[in-house]
Order: sequence, then structure tokens, then C-alpha cells
Amino acid sequence: MKPFEHIALIANVELPEVTEPLKRLCHFLEKEGYSVALESKTSLLIANNTLPIFDCLDEGLKLDLIVVVGGDGSMLSVGRSAAELNIPLLGVNRGRLGFLTDIQPDDMENQLIRVLAGDYIASNRFLLEISLSRKGEKINSGEAINDVVVHPGSSLRMMEFELYIDEQFVYSQRSDGLIVSTPTGSTAYALSGGGPILHPNLDAIVLVPMNPHTLSSRPVVVGGNSSIEIKLGLRNEHSMVTCDGQNDLVPQPGDVICIEKKMQPLKLIHQADNSFYATCRTKLGWGSRLDSSNRNR
Amino acid sequence: MKPFEHIALIANVELPEVTEPLKRLCHFLEKEGYSVALESKTSLLIANNTLPIFDCLDEGLKLDLIVVVGGDGSMLSVGRSAAELNIPLLGVNRGRLGFLTDIQPDDMENQLIRVLAGDYIASNRFLLEISLSRKGEKINSGEAINDVVVHPGSSLRMMEFELYIDEQFVYSQRSDGLIVSTPTGSTAYALSGGGPILHPNLDAIVLVPMNPHTLSSRPVVVGGNSSIEIKLGLRNEHSMVTCDGQNDLVPQPGDVICIEKKMQPLKLIHQADNSFYATCRTKLGWGSRLDSSNRNR
Amino acid sequence: MKPFEHIALIANVELPEVTEPLKRLCHFLEKEGYSVALESKTSLLIANNTLPIFDCLDEGLKLDLIVVVGGDGSMLSVGRSAAELNIPLLGVNRGRLGFLTDIQPDDMENQLIRVLAGDYIASNRFLLEISLSRKGEKINSGEAINDVVVHPGSSLRMMEFELYIDEQFVYSQRSDGLIVSTPTGSTAYALSGGGPILHPNLDAIVLVPMNPHTLSSRPVVVGGNSSIEIKLGLRNEHSMVTCDGQNDLVPQPGDVICIEKKMQPLKLIHQADNSFYATCRTKLGWGSRLDSSNRNR
Amino acid sequence: MKPFEHIALIANVELPEVTEPLKRLCHFLEKEGYSVALESKTSLLIANNTLPIFDCLDEGLKLDLIVVVGGDGSMLSVGRSAAELNIPLLGVNRGRLGFLTDIQPDDMENQLIRVLAGDYIASNRFLLEISLSRKGEKINSGEAINDVVVHPGSSLRMMEFELYIDEQFVYSQRSDGLIVSTPTGSTAYALSGGGPILHPNLDAIVLVPMNPHTLSSRPVVVGGNSSIEIKLGLRNEHSMVTCDGQNDLVPQPGDVICIEKKMQPLKLIHQADNSFYATCRTKLGWGSRLDSSNRNR
Repeated sequence: MKPFEHIALIANVELPEVTEPLKRLCHFLEKEGYSVALESKTSLLIANNTLPIFDCLDEGLKLDLIVVVGGDGSMLSVGRSAAELNIPLLGVNRGRLGFLTDIQPDDMENQLIRVLAGDYIASNRFLLEISLSRKGEKINSGEAINDVVVHPGSSLRMMEFELYIDEQFVYSQRSDGLIVSTPTGSTAYALSGGGPILHPNLDAIVLVPMNPHTLSSRPVVVGGNSSIEIKLGLRNEHSMVTCDGQNDLVPQPGDVICIEKKMQPLKLIHQADNSFYATCRTKLGWGSRLDSSNRNR
Repeated sequence: MKPFEHIALIANVELPEVTEPLKRLCHFLEKEGYSVALESKTSLLIANNTLPIFDCLDEGLKLDLIVVVGGDGSMLSVGRSAAELNIPLLGVNRGRLGFLTDIQPDDMENQLIRVLAGDYIASNRFLLEISLSRKGEKINSGEAINDVVVHPGSSLRMMEFELYIDEQFVYSQRSDGLIVSTPTGSTAYALSGGGPILHPNLDAIVLVPMNPHTLSSRPVVVGGNSSIEIKLGLRNEHSMVTCDGQNDLVPQPGDVICIEKKMQPLKLIHQADNSFYATCRTKLGWGSRLDSSNRNR
Repeated sequence: MKPFEHIALIANVELPEVTEPLKRLCHFLEKEGYSVALESKTSLLIANNTLPIFDCLDEGLKLDLIVVVGGDGSMLSVGRSAAELNIPLLGVNRGRLGFLTDIQPDDMENQLIRVLAGDYIASNRFLLEISLSRKGEKINSGEAINDVVVHPGSSLRMMEFELYIDEQFVYSQRSDGLIVSTPTGSTAYALSGGGPILHPNLDAIVLVPMNPHTLSSRPVVVGGNSSIEIKLGLRNEHSMVTCDGQNDLVPQPGDVICIEKKMQPLKLIHQADNSFYATCRTKLGWGSRLDSSNRNR
Repeated sequence: MKPFEHIALIANVELPEVTEPLKRLCHFLEKEGYSVALESKTSLLIANNTLPIFDCLDEGLKLDLIVVVGGDGSMLSVGRSAAELNIPLLGVNRGRLGFLTDIQPDDMENQLIRVLAGDYIASNRFLLEISLSRKGEKINSGEAINDVVVHPGSSLRMMEFELYIDEQFVYSQRSDGLIVSTPTGSTAYALSGGGPILHPNLDAIVLVPMNPHTLSSRPVVVGGNSSIEIKLGLRNEHSMVTCDGQNDLVPQPGDVICIEKKMQPLKLIHQADNSFYATCRTKLGWGSRLDSSNRNR
């Protein structure tokens, strides 16, 4: 029995370079006898398409796999829905290696044959669940695969907040904001902000202060089951809470942002030979194996 | 029943300021009816001492608690034995607040009464077990509460090594060395080296490269059960492996250093109101609670 | 002859705590026989004021000194005018030590007597002159004592630009923006952004990338006479150029921001015993002199 | 008239890959009619050599140019003598681009023809002069093109010292040492240690603390004419002062290390199209010019 029978395709339609791999992908999956459905905007990229079309992901689709053609950004946006529906997600990149997408267009068919035959790694990635409370009442919520950033809305406006972890007061901070990141997000924005790299399997959350006024405010890593509360100062007029760089919650001064691990993880499908560290080496320029001609400093 | 009946006292005899708190401690514990034993060097600080004396910690002592009077350094050295023997450890500082010691001499008696009455927090801290192998054979071993540092022996001599985690190749690195730290050690040397702060309860290990030649070599946090292997380059003539800044293993070029979590943790006794974050605020100057008079940047 | 005869007073009227020192300052200067003028908003803080009032600083005022009562923010805003008019500037802080203000309210009269008697240090601080060009034509300009920040307007929107120094291409960068700072500004926002501290007398400009996508993008220090050009990418829709965190220029995609040293410096008056490093020690918690009781790590 | 008539060749004889370019270089210079002399060890690489040989650089040689075949390390060691003798220095790299060497073996002849014809840039690089004093008396001295590092000798032994700049007390510091670097050295060890990049023409010195105990101890940039004094603590038993990573001074506890700019600079010869920023882009992976296909984050 094939592990993935019903497959949905979603492409980032704003990237012209996805059209060619998308067409090849459709052709390949049909030829191999899979049941394929196309997201409606994605379907417009394929002339004379006769495949079934859907508007948005829901339980009625009975999918075994979602394939995204695009970059890490597309993966994040589809991934939040895929996690909710408990459908595995696979990414086809549009050229460059990504941390979330590792099928390369050039060799797509060969790589897919192996994955679809069951030769893959499934990596569970937990999401963050964000709720915004005002005077004790929850007024809005969101979720994130990579990170939640609490920030002043406009750049260069400093914000002030108190941080509590598991109901313990941690610190008050004046800064450009705070990045709260999953291990998955630790190689994205949190890394630019000076955070450490967390292995994707680690059950932990990292908090990275952005340009903090106090120089000793350093990244802090806490357990994945921690409950993180950020109480906004009374003067942070235009603060924002941004999930995965894509969705915003708009708090008012004095509001409380609570961040916790979401129960339902995202199931990410990787090629069987995928290695997190190999991706780091490629994307970050880390050193390859030593040879015998070591050099002096 | 008292939770701690048989108590050993060990002081850092090189610090003149321990004598006075040590005497008060002896007096207090005897008066309260505890069975007290003194480490032999420590006993020399107390004139006319009549308490039992022991040379080194072993199972025959049947201890319920070890109290160290000194700094974090003394805690590390006693703590490695305490973990081995599964005896809880409590630290009396000689003035300044420490991450490991939180009984203050000034208010020692009041703080101890509560702890000895059972009003305390026990915090399990895992240790690292280090083994050094040459040509496949284990030739030496060590252990550490804070950190293991692989370094070139002399400062300013660069070293080169390959890092493997759970048998996956991570990178080769040219640097001044690598700090492998427990959460307990993350607020010690690893913090000076640019590492993140790990909450003491986190089951994770952080690897902090020291002055790496490649600027994108950043701290990496992996799960506590990871097996970490460092293969020394063939030209690292004088490398050293230092445990807790106190004990050295001396590898040769080409040797492999394997670092893993030790099964038996150290049981650290803290006052009931001890807060890791409060200690961070005090020692790192993090901000206290916001008041109503927030200020402009 | 007194070095400063005609003195203007300007307070940050939004800070309630300036009223008391301002009143004492007026009283003191009048009693000592100085000719004092009050900025109009400042004058409202003083009941029954009979001193001359001015709306804004201009050449007609014939001033020898401007005294600001407030924080570093007030000093920046008055300082840009003071530099233009070549009038020395002295700051009275409202409590905390500042890098620009070093007269403390508590001991204000004693400190001022010495300064006004000629016992002071004058420290020339250069300003940055910013011009914004569109298709080769200059369309706006600004100036800054601390820093110019080119940023995406909204936080969390990445920007892309090319940097040229002295007409040489340096790099293209994707980041949250770029801080271009004088030595004076190097202890302000640039320091939170990870920049080095530049001694106030150094003739240099530091460029600090904000959360750059490329981890090897590090702060760069160039000569004070360098001409710095930032060419905005074609997709940076809402970018901003902010001078001293106070004034904004609003560029369009493709615009060029040119930053150079301004000819006319600000003349900052400090107490004779003012030490830049002493201020660093106080504000940054640097270590004081060693005593004989050095401690172990 | 040719700008460089008498040319000395010095190769790093420990690198096997220098032999081939060295031979081509000899052949080329002889063919072009230059007067060539070979350093004695270098001459051993050339079979049947008939060129004049010298043991060490001195004034009697009457040289117009020294060409080094090797890496940046060789340039530093020859450069200190070249500066003393006021002879310009040109570097032929053995493959990789260097910050000091920019003639590539592949295209060596074409590049040299232009340089020797006068089509070059001369870049003056200042050196640091180091003197070690004990009880007020100077006991040893050294010099450095890149950097002076004051460190504890053995790695992992913390040191403690007081820093004075221009006779003002700056701070006391507990750390793994201090890097004092020229602009030339700012892209070498100081960069790994977290320092900023200084443009080679900048008249400044940067001080980079190594793993300081106080997290707010940040790199400091001061004017090139500053006098820097480091007073060692009384317990720093095995400290070392290392110049350019090559030569050591051995101080005792309490000794004073004084570091100042040396009068006589090194004259470095670069190709006419050499660009410091282009070298940074290549070696540090900085971004190239933007094209029209800017990408989303």
C-alpha cells in the first residue's frame, strides 16, 4: 500500500519560477497513478487543467500529503493548516536549499519516487499557540511554526514589557521587542537576532531579545512545555504580535500575550538522507570534513 | 522525621572568609541536634573541634546532606562526588549570591532552619560524562557539572576538530576550542563565550564555539540525551579537555572525545523561595518590575 | 572676564522632575549675576517669571551658553541647533548620569560655579549631515548628533539596500536596517545593536547592520571624512531614515541616502573632572580598580 | 625609470605549494630584467639557482621591493622587518585571496607587469610597538602589524588586569585576555573575538576583550595615537603577550604592558584595482550587487 495516495498541490503563485516544477510535478504524479488535487490559485498556473480543485484545506479533502512548491514562507503558511488537519507536508524548493523544503526541482522526480515509496523521514515540529488577553479576557489568538515576535509596530520605537515564564517573573525589558521561537524557527529570524541554533527535535523554546537596552539581556532557552507571558507596558501604544512574519495580532498597552506549545504538531516529510546539520553546513558555510592538509592559522 | 539527620560540612579552606560562617554553622547544627561530620581540612579551621572527621566522601559515611561553605567552584568539586554517592548538596555562600549556592551567611540560621525542616526545593542537575578514546580504545574519563572545554592547551594556538552529534557529522571547525555545557553551566563560562542561558530544568546541552574562524559558527543546543563526539585534527599537539575548569584529560592528535549525559544526577538543595530568574536578575542586572513611571528611550 | 555671560535655559517640559532643578538653576544664575533667557515653554514652569523669553534659538540671541535640563534626548534636539549657531551646550541631568549630561541636580550649584568660572572641558562632537536624493536630485536633508538609522518603517519588514563608501561598493544587505553612528552615538542605539564603543574624540563613523540575514555582516568603522551612500532596493516601499531617533526623512524605493560629517561641530561642555571611561564604568557596570583580594573564577 | 629595480624574494618554505609560483616568479623577473635576490632558505627551493642570496633583511641589501610568496602569516613576519627598513612589500598568495596578499598565482605574470610598471596602490599600515615594564623599568619590547594579545598563557586560566588609555583608568577586567589590534588586524583574530572591522586607512586601535566575565565589556575603538597601558593583576602567574600570533613577551604579575603606534609604517603594495571591500565580500560572503529580482524574506 502506498503511504500517500491522495495528494494536494499548493504553489506560491507569486513566484514565476514555480510554474515549471509545478507542471512537471502534476505530470509526474498523474503518470504514477496518484490522486491529485490542486489549490484553486495554483490550478490557474496549469493550462487546460482537469484535476479537482479546492479553495482551502479542510477535513473533507481526505488528503494523505500536501506538497508545497515554493520557499520556506509558503511552507509556513500552508503548514499551520496542515498541522491543524494532521496532514503531512512536503516541500519542493524553487532552487535554493531550504530548512523546511528539501526536494530540489532539478532532481524532483527521482527524489519523489523514493519519498512516495515510503523512503522518507517524518519530523514532527511543534507549533506555538498565541493568545492575547485584555483585563483577564482572551480577545484574540494565533499560531506559529517558526516564531512569534512582539514588537513596537514601527521600527525605532522602543517597547517595554514584563516577561513571566511558568508564572515566575523573569525580567522587565526595554528593547525593540522579543522573538519567541520554536527550534524550527531558530534558524530563521531568531538567528539574525543573535539566538542559538536549536536542533529541530529539541523540546524547547528560545526567547531572543531584540537590541535590548541592557547589554546582559541574552537569549534564554526554556522547556517546550513552558508557559510564556508577556505583559505589555502601559505606554506601548502601537505594539504588534507577529506570527511567522505573516499574521498580526494587535494588542493595546497593558495587554498580556500568552505563548504555549500547541498540542497538534506539524508532520514534515524529508528525504531519507536529509540531515539538519548538512543543511546548516550548506546554508551557513560551516566547514566540511577535515582533510590531511590542515593549515596554519 | 527530619529529612536530613547526618550532615557533612566542607569548606573551601583557601578562602579566609569561610571560617566565621563555618563556625556558626557547626554551632547551630550541633545546638539543633544534628549529627555533624567535618571534612579533615575543614576541621582545621575549628579550634578544639570534637566532631567526627572524614578524609573524603564515601558510602560508609551514611550522609543525608552535604553543606559546602564557599563559592560555586567549591560546589562543583564536591558536587561531582555528591552526585556519585546520591547525597543532596546545599551551598552556603561567602557573601555574594551564586547560581549554585543560595544560603547567605548573614541570615544563615533562619534560612537553614526552614531548609532542614523540609521547606526546600530539590533541583536535579545532570552531569556530563566524558571519555577519551584513542584508536577505538577508551583511555581516560572524567565528568562535569558545568562544562567540558576542548581547547588547545596554550591560548592563541588554534585547534581544528570535527564534531559529530548522534553519529551525524556536524562540522569541522578551526577555533580556540569548544565549550560543551549543561544548563547548569550555561550561566558560567559558556555565557562569557557568547552562549544562551538554558533554564536549569531543561534537558539539553549547549555547544559554544570559542572565537571560531567561521563567523557563522553559532552556539547549538541539542537534546540532553545526545551523544557528542569531537575528533581532534591530526595537528592539535597540545590539546586539553578540561572538566568544570578543574580537571584535565590530555588527548593526542586524532583522539576522540565522547560526551554524554551521566545517569546519576546531582541533587541540589535550594531554599523554597529560590528563583533561577531572580538570581539572573541580581547577577546579570536584568530589569525589575515596571512601575508606572515608564521613561522614554 | 567670565567665559559665559549670556545663558539660555531650556528644559524638557514633559518631565515633571525638571521643575525643581530648573527653579534652583534660575535662582542661582540670577544671584550670581548672569544674564539669563528662558525658552518660552520652559518659562511656563516658573511662576511669576520676569526673565526674557525666546521662542527658538537664533543668532539674534547672542548667547554664550545653553543649559539644558533633561535627559540625553533633550540634549540631542537642542544640540542640533546649538551646533548650527556655534553655541556651547551644557546638560543638567534629572537624576541619572548621562553620556551627554553630567551636571547632577543634587550638587548642581557647586558643579556650575566651577564650570562657569572656566574650569571645564569642551568636547567637540561632530554631527552627521544626511541628504536624500531621488534620480540624482537632492530632495530632503537632515542632521544627527548620535545616529542615522535607515530602516523599513514597520518593524519585521526586511529591507534591501546597497552600501557605498567613498564611491566604492561595499555590499548589498538584507536586514532590518542600518545604523550609521557618530562616536557620540556609539554608546546609544548602536551599542544595543551590537556595535563597538568609539571614544568621543575619534574621527570615525561606525555602521552597524541590524539583524542582518548574512551572519558575517559585522559592524564596520570608517574614517570620519568618509562619504556613505545607501541605495535603497526597488521593493523597499515604506522605508524611513530617522535622525537621532527624532526626525524622519521618507525615501521611496531606489532613493539614495548620502551621509557625511557636518563641518560645524557641537561644543559640549563637561565638568573638568569628566571622564568618558568613568561614565562607561557607571552606566555599563565595568569593573573598578583591582584590590589585593583577587578572587578565583 | 622603473619604480622597483632591486627585488628580494621570500617564500614560506613550509608550504609545498609555494615552489611552483616561486620558480615562475624568478623566471619572470629575470626575463624582465630585474635585479633579484633570494632569501637563503627560499633559494633551496630552486635547483641550480645562480641568483644572489641573503640571510636576513638589512639595510645593506638596497632593496626597492620585497615579494613574499605565502600566506598572511608570512607577510606579517617579513612585514615587521620591511617596515623597519622602509621597503615596500608585495604578497603573492598560494591560492586563496588574502587581506594582505592579493597577487594570485594563476595570473601572476600579468598582475606583476602592471604593478612593476607603476600601476599599483601603496597602502601604509601602522604597526604597534609594545614595551613591557617591571617596577618602572622597561625590560622587553616587540612589535605587531596585526595585533597584540595579552592572555593567560594556558587557555582556561582567567586573567585580571587594569586598562588605562592615555593615562585615564578605563576598567579592570576578568577575562581570557585582551586583543589590541590595528585596522590591519581587525579582519584577523580580533574579528573572531567579536570585534568590528576597521577600514585599513583608519587611524584607530581596537581593543577586544576575550570572553569577559562582565557581559557589558564590549570592543572599544580609540584613536591611533592613544597610549594603551595594561597593568597585570598580582595573581596572573603565567601571562603572555603575543605579537602577531608569532612572538611572545613573558611578563610577571604586576608588570605593565604599554602599546603605542610605531612611527615607521609598513608600505603594502596592492594591485591598482584592489578594493578592501571586495576582499571582505569574497572572504566573508557579503552580498553582491542587487539585481532586479529582489526576493521576499
